[in-house]
Amino acid sequence: MDNIKNEMIIKNVSVLRHNGELQDADIVIEDGKIGFVGRVVGGNVLDGHIKDLKIIDGKGKLAIPGLVNAHTHASMTLLRSFADDKKLMDWLQEDIWPIEAKMKREDIYCGAALAAVEMIRTGTTAFADMYGPYMDEVAKVVEESGLRGVLSRGLIGVADGYKKLAENVELFKNFHNKADGRIKVMFGPHAIYTCPPDYLKKVSEAATELGAEIHIHMNETIDEINGCLKDYGKRPFEVVNETGLFDLGTLAAHCVHLSEEEVNIIKEKNIRVAHNPGSNMKLASGIAPITKLINEGVIVALGTDGASSNNNLDMLEEVKLAALLHKVDTLDPLAIPAAEALRLGTDNGAKALGLEKVGRIEKDYKADIVLYDMKGVEWQPRYNPISLLVYSANSNSVDTVIVDGKILMEKRELKTLDEEKIIFNFNKCFNRLTGYYI
Amino acid sequence: MDNIKNEMIIKNVSVLRHNGELQDADIVIEDGKIGFVGRVVGGNVLDGHIKDLKIIDGKGKLAIPGLVNAHTHASMTLLRSFADDKKLMDWLQEDIWPIEAKMKREDIYCGAALAAVEMIRTGTTAFADMYGPYMDEVAKVVEESGLRGVLSRGLIGVADGYKKLAENVELFKNFHNKADGRIKVMFGPHAIYTCPPDYLKKVSEAATELGAEIHIHMNETIDEINGCLKDYGKRPFEVVNETGLFDLGTLAAHCVHLSEEEVNIIKEKNIRVAHNPGSNMKLASGIAPITKLINEGVIVALGTDGASSNNNLDMLEEVKLAALLHKVDTLDPLAIPAAEALRLGTDNGAKALGLEKVGRIEKDYKADIVLYDMKGVEWQPRYNPISLLVYSANSNSVDTVIVDGKILMEKRELKTLDEEKIIFNFNKCFNRLTGYYI
Repeated sequence: MDNIKNEMIIKNVSVLRHNGELQDADIVIEDGKIGFVGRVVGGNVLDGHIKDLKIIDGKGKLAIPGLVNAHTHASMTLLRSFADDKKLMDWLQEDIWPIEAKMKREDIYCGAALAAVEMIRTGTTAFADMYGPYMDEVAKVVEESGLRGVLSRGLIGVADGYKKLAENVELFKNFHNKADGRIKVMFGPHAIYTCPPDYLKKVSEAATELGAEIHIHMNETIDEINGCLKDYGKRPFEVVNETGLFDLGTLAAHCVHLSEEEVNIIKEKNIRVAHNPGSNMKLASGIAPITKLINEGVIVALGTDGASSNNNLDMLEEVKLAALLHKVDTLDPLAIPAAEALRLGTDNGAKALGLEKVGRIEKDYKADIVLYDMKGVEWQPRYNPISLLVYSANSNSVDTVIVDGKILMEKRELKTLDEEKIIFNFNKCFNRLTGYYI
Repeated sequence: MDNIKNEMIIKNVSVLRHNGELQDADIVIEDGKIGFVGRVVGGNVLDGHIKDLKIIDGKGKLAIPGLVNAHTHASMTLLRSFADDKKLMDWLQEDIWPIEAKMKREDIYCGAALAAVEMIRTGTTAFADMYGPYMDEVAKVVEESGLRGVLSRGLIGVADGYKKLAENVELFKNFHNKADGRIKVMFGPHAIYTCPPDYLKKVSEAATELGAEIHIHMNETIDEINGCLKDYGKRPFEVVNETGLFDLGTLAAHCVHLSEEEVNIIKEKNIRVAHNPGSNMKLASGIAPITKLINEGVIVALGTDGASSNNNLDMLEEVKLAALLHKVDTLDPLAIPAAEALRLGTDNGAKALGLEKVGRIEKDYKADIVLYDMKGVEWQPRYNPISLLVYSANSNSVDTVIVDGKILMEKRELKTLDEEKIIFNFNKCFNRLTGYYI
C-alpha cells in the first residue's frame, strides 16, 4: 500500500458493506473512487508520505453509501407547508397550481438550492428530479452543490406539450453527462392522466433518438387507474406499454395500485420502481405492494416526492418508513429488515437512476459516502449500528457527506453551498410568489 | 402587569394554543404554572423590575406543550438494537427475557437515566412507565431529571405474582405524589396472557384500597386475542372487565384489534388508549382503529413503547407516524391533521396519564413547555409551523424544555442530568448484562 497516490482516507470507521454486514476498516479514496476498503498496513506511516492527503477520523462513525432520492421535485420546497391536510385535487387546484403558474427562473433555482442544502444535510448524494420549466437552473444547482442529479423536464402533454418536449430535448443536449458526469438527463412525461398515448409516442421517439431514459409517475391513486380504465379501457401500465415508452429504460414513481398483468409488464420491461412511502401515506394514496415487487425481482428504490407532499427531503425517514410500513402491511415482522431498507435507499436507488458504480462502498465504486456520528443517546448501546440507524437515529447524526470523492459537508459544515444566503433568497422568492412575508 | 411576581418570561414566541391555532405572544410563568399568555405590556420595562426574572428569547421559536409518552418501558433502552427484525415470541424468548432476568437494581437506574436524557432531548416532559423490579430507581430518575413520571410495577401474575403486587403497593406508598407531585403511581398488570382473571381481581382490590389507577397492555396482537378466546371463551376486554379492574381508571396500551363490544367497554369505562404506532408497525402487530376511537370520543394518546421495539423514545416521530399511518389506513388525507396529531401527543397524553392541568399552554396549566428552534432548512418557508413540526422537522430542533416551570434543557444543554456520565454508566451495565463490549 505504500506507494499508492491517495486523495483521502477515512480511518477506523464502521463500514456498511454490500453484503449488509459491518466492517471496521479504513476507506481509501483515489480519483473520486473507492480504491480500497480494509486495513491500511502502516496507516500511520502513510500519513506523511503523500502530499495533500486528506485524513478523516472515522472513529465512532458509521459509513454508508450516500442515500439516493429516486423521486422528487426539488424546487417544490418553496411550497412546503403551504397547503397540508387537504384532498389531492383540492390541494393541486386551489393551492399548488396557481403558485406554480407564477414561478420564474429564479424560483426554480432558489427552491432547488434550498433542496440541495437539505439533501446534503440529510445524507442524500444523488436525486432524480422532475419539474419545470427552467430545469437548467436545477442543473446549475447540481453543478454548484456537488450532488448527483438525474433531471427531467416534467412533460404535461395536454398543455403546450410540444414546447415542453423541445425543452426536455434541449436539457438533454446541454446537460446530459455534464458536471463531471454528475448530471444525467431523462425525459419526464408526467403521468397517463396528463399525457395521452399519442403524446407519449412522441416522447418515446424523441427520447429514443437521444438514447435517453424515462422518469414517469405511474399508478399513484385509485382515481388515476379508474380514469385510465374509463378513457382507454385498460390500466395505465398497459396503455403506456403500447406507446413504446417502456422500451427505453424507465424509472416509475409510486406504483401503488398494480394488477398482476401490470407487475408482469414491470418485470418484462425491467422498470425500476421509486417507492415514496411518506408521500403515499400523507396523501392517503395507498400502500404499494413493495414486498411482492422485491420478491419478484423488481428493483425498488425510495423517494421523498416533493417537499409539499412529504414534507421534507430526508431519505433516512423514507428508509425507516419503508421498513415499518411494509411490516405492518404484510403483518410480517421480518419484512424489509434494516439492512434491506438501507439497500433500497442506496444501491437500489443508484440502479433505479441508472447510475453506474454508485451505491456501494466497494472497490472501484464512486466515492459517494455518508458518515454518521454515533455519539448521541439514541445510538446507545451501540450494539447494532445498522438497526440503530434505521430504527432509532435521525439525520441530524449525518456528520460528513462525500460525492465523487469531494467533501460536500464535514462535521455538519457545508463546503460547497452558502446556506444563509440560500435561505435568504429562497424566502424572497416565497414572499413574491405568495404575498406572505416570512 | 407591572407588579406581578414572575419567575420566567418567554418573549415573542409562536405559541400553539389549545384551539390548534398559533399566536405570537409572551408566556409568563409563575410558581411553576402558566400565569399569562399574550402580550406583556411594557415588557421591556418589566425586565429590570423583578429580581431573578429569567428571560428566554422566543424569537424564531415555536412553543408547544411538552410531549407526553403514554406508554414506555424506560429501562429497556439497555436492550435497544439488541434483537431486531425477529418474530415477537422469538425475540422475547431468545433475546429479551434472558437478559431481563439478569437485570439488577443499577441496570434499572442506568437504563431509565439514559431514557430520561433521550426524552428531554426529544421534547418529552411526562411519561408513563411500566417495568420492574426496582421501579423506585425509575422514581429516583424522575426526581433527579425533573420530568413527570407515571410509574407502575409490571405485574406478571403467573410468576411470583403476589410478591410483585406487594412491590407495586410499596411503590405507591413510597412515591405516589412525591417529587413535588411529579410522580404518580399506577398498578401495572402486564396483560391478560400473563395475568389470569383471579390475579387481576387481587390487583383490582389492592389498587382500589389505595385509590390507584391501572396501566395495562390490551389487545396488542391477534395471537393475544386468540389465546384469550381459547382460554376464556371471551375477548380480552370482556374478561378483564369482569374482574372489576376497569372501574379504577385505566390507561390501556395498544388496543390494536378491537370488537364493537370491546369499543363499547372502552367508552363505558372511560378507558384511555395509548396508541404506539411505531412499535405496532415494527412488530407487525397491526393498525389500531384510532380514527374510529377518536370519533367515538375515546381519549387516544401516543406512546413509544420500549426502546427495544421502536427503537427510540422520540415522541415527535410517533406524532408524525400517527398522522401518516391513519391517513393511508383509512384512505382519507384529512384523517388526523397536524394539529390533532400534536394534541394526541400532548393534551390527550396528559389526560391519559390522569395529570391535571397539564398538556396545554393556557393560564393556570402547569408550565410544561417545549421550544423548537425553527432556523433549519426543513422549516423553510416558515409558512405553517404546526405542519412543519409534524411533517418536516425532527426532534433535533428541540431547543429548550421546561417542566413545572423548571428548565431541564436550554439551547440543547441539559440542566439537570450529566449526559456523559449517564452514557458511561449505561454502557457498563450493558456490557455486564450481555458480555458485549461497546
